[in-house]
Amino acid sequence: MLGFHNSTEGKIFHSTKEIKKIIKVIKKSNNFLITSHINLEGDSLGSQLAMANLLRRLGKNFVVFDADRVPTHYQFLPDIDLVQHEVDIKKKIDVAIVLDCPNMSRTGRVEEALKKIGYIINIDHHVSNEIYGDLNWVEKDVSSVGEMVYQLYKELNCEITKETALYLYISILTDTGSFNYSNTSSVTHEIVSELLECGIEPYDVSRNIYENKTIGDIKLLGRVLSDMKVVENGRIAYSVVRRRHFNLTKTQPASCENFVNFARSIKGVIVAVFFRENIKKMGLFHVSFRSVKNADVNKIASFFGGGGHKNASGCTVHGSFKEVKRRILRRVKDELDR
Amino acid sequence: MLGFHNSTEGKIFHSTKEIKKIIKVIKKSNNFLITSHINLEGDSLGSQLAMANLLRRLGKNFVVFDADRVPTHYQFLPDIDLVQHEVDIKKKIDVAIVLDCPNMSRTGRVEEALKKIGYIINIDHHVSNEIYGDLNWVEKDVSSVGEMVYQLYKELNCEITKETALYLYISILTDTGSFNYSNTSSVTHEIVSELLECGIEPYDVSRNIYENKTIGDIKLLGRVLSDMKVVENGRIAYSVVRRRHFNLTKTQPASCENFVNFARSIKGVIVAVFFRENIKKMGLFHVSFRSVKNADVNKIASFFGGGGHKNASGCTVHGSFKEVKRRILRRVKDELDR
Repeated sequence: MLGFHNSTEGKIFHSTKEIKKIIKVIKKSNNFLITSHINLEGDSLGSQLAMANLLRRLGKNFVVFDADRVPTHYQFLPDIDLVQHEVDIKKKIDVAIVLDCPNMSRTGRVEEALKKIGYIINIDHHVSNEIYGDLNWVEKDVSSVGEMVYQLYKELNCEITKETALYLYISILTDTGSFNYSNTSSVTHEIVSELLECGIEPYDVSRNIYENKTIGDIKLLGRVLSDMKVVENGRIAYSVVRRRHFNLTKTQPASCENFVNFARSIKGVIVAVFFRENIKKMGLFHVSFRSVKNADVNKIASFFGGGGHKNASGCTVHGSFKEVKRRILRRVKDELDR
Repeated sequence: MLGFHNSTEGKIFHSTKEIKKIIKVIKKSNNFLITSHINLEGDSLGSQLAMANLLRRLGKNFVVFDADRVPTHYQFLPDIDLVQHEVDIKKKIDVAIVLDCPNMSRTGRVEEALKKIGYIINIDHHVSNEIYGDLNWVEKDVSSVGEMVYQLYKELNCEITKETALYLYISILTDTGSFNYSNTSSVTHEIVSELLECGIEPYDVSRNIYENKTIGDIKLLGRVLSDMKVVENGRIAYSVVRRRHFNLTKTQPASCENFVNFARSIKGVIVAVFFRENIKKMGLFHVSFRSVKNADVNKIASFFGGGGHKNASGCTVHGSFKEVKRRILRRVKDELDR
């Protein structure tokens, strides 16, 4: 066990007051709902399951309720069956804990349930967080919500079991792009060092999450890369997946999770854009943005009703591809010329 | 500074005796040659430059001599101009330090120079290392030679400057596949935590190394993925780049560095193979292997005169693509059926 408290005190967690309040509320309540955003991914799933383990350890009742299905490559997680998609909220719930979610509407169908719950704890690291909780703990500089839940374990002096370590590891691994993004700190690695000591095998995790593709996934990516375009003197790169491509390659939208990063990997590109047509609705496009340094794609996504982080965000736009592309790229260009 | 000595003693470095011998030889000698294998990459460059910094700090004379050119995406390293490609060995050199190199012939043209030097220190982590030095420190379970050079710094109580931290970080980052491979340990993350405290910005490094591509690189990868084949009931995946593809996409062989990993990322694939035709010589193929768990691709590569690690290796084979492919895939099948 590393000297976590000594080395991080006042370093990344400025909100010790919020942590203490959260622990007080958790201790005096009994029935919890845990949720996160739609399009479940590593941090949303990892932080929810780690939180569930924490509540279980404290002898609390809880339900994990998410609007969307769990992607196939996260089905290997031991407690994944805890995640429910239909919950009867009539039975009493004292507190909802919303993790990794910038606003209430991003919880999808769960929003209705949240409105009926008397007390909401909002734990997040999105810069676009709308501070919608009765209690809000938002740390925009932290790698992942998993890193924040780790802090709760430490504060409560609660043992990190191998399973909890796995959930926290997955949160951090996926939200830091395997420790490559700028949100990765010395403390992040210090925490992960401790998690590996609990018995996590990095390659087993990596293989489950990142090496679980079909040949169709690979062909879909091949097509996306072959069709990639670079515009605006090399500052913008973009690519698109249309509905028919999913059929041709027998793939699902989840296959596209990291596609936007390939556009960013081109030298000189400041903003990378990836368009994914909705698999059911024609003329509905999910747009992912990645940017470098000062280019603020959270602003762009927010303009279209989405959000996220300064260098990674997303939104959904209606229209023909030609029209959607035109509107999005114009906005990106405006941000670059700002 | 973390308590490195306490937490790692007897844990991964079993060869304290070798370390002490190396330090003794370094202390009593004055003129050094530092080298590594052909096809320079992150660990070979990072460990050489960190070693150069160590010798500089100790007031020694040294020359860094490598057979191959430095790939473009490593040109940003501060001391990269130290790497020379033509060295006159007539002037006296007491000791050669060969880093990250399993045998003498993998140093390419440098081998001739090595033969004239009286004393060779071999520091490596390849399982296929041939123990060719007068002093051999080989740790096959360690993530990278960078991690070993870090140990020398600690043993010598030598300050890790920001530049040294960068070299060590790059060694570890690239040889662990961003901390995803099974060679990543709790100690690896503990070391990296300390390196980040020296001022390393992970995303700046990552962008230089991994996000420095041309649109041609992306199109080349697109083609490779679109043409990928899965055979032997899904246990083997392979793809190929021919000479003409480099011309068509205006790319170089270095563009293919991680292509083999895409073949491994397919669920059920046990051995991934990537064939790259030599850009100058028709009918000469560089073959990279990646494998999962017990499948030993070092054995396969060794059969064809190459080598590496159990789960990652390479070799070079002459012949038509059809013939080379047939020979390689048959050998892979034999290993799988073993």
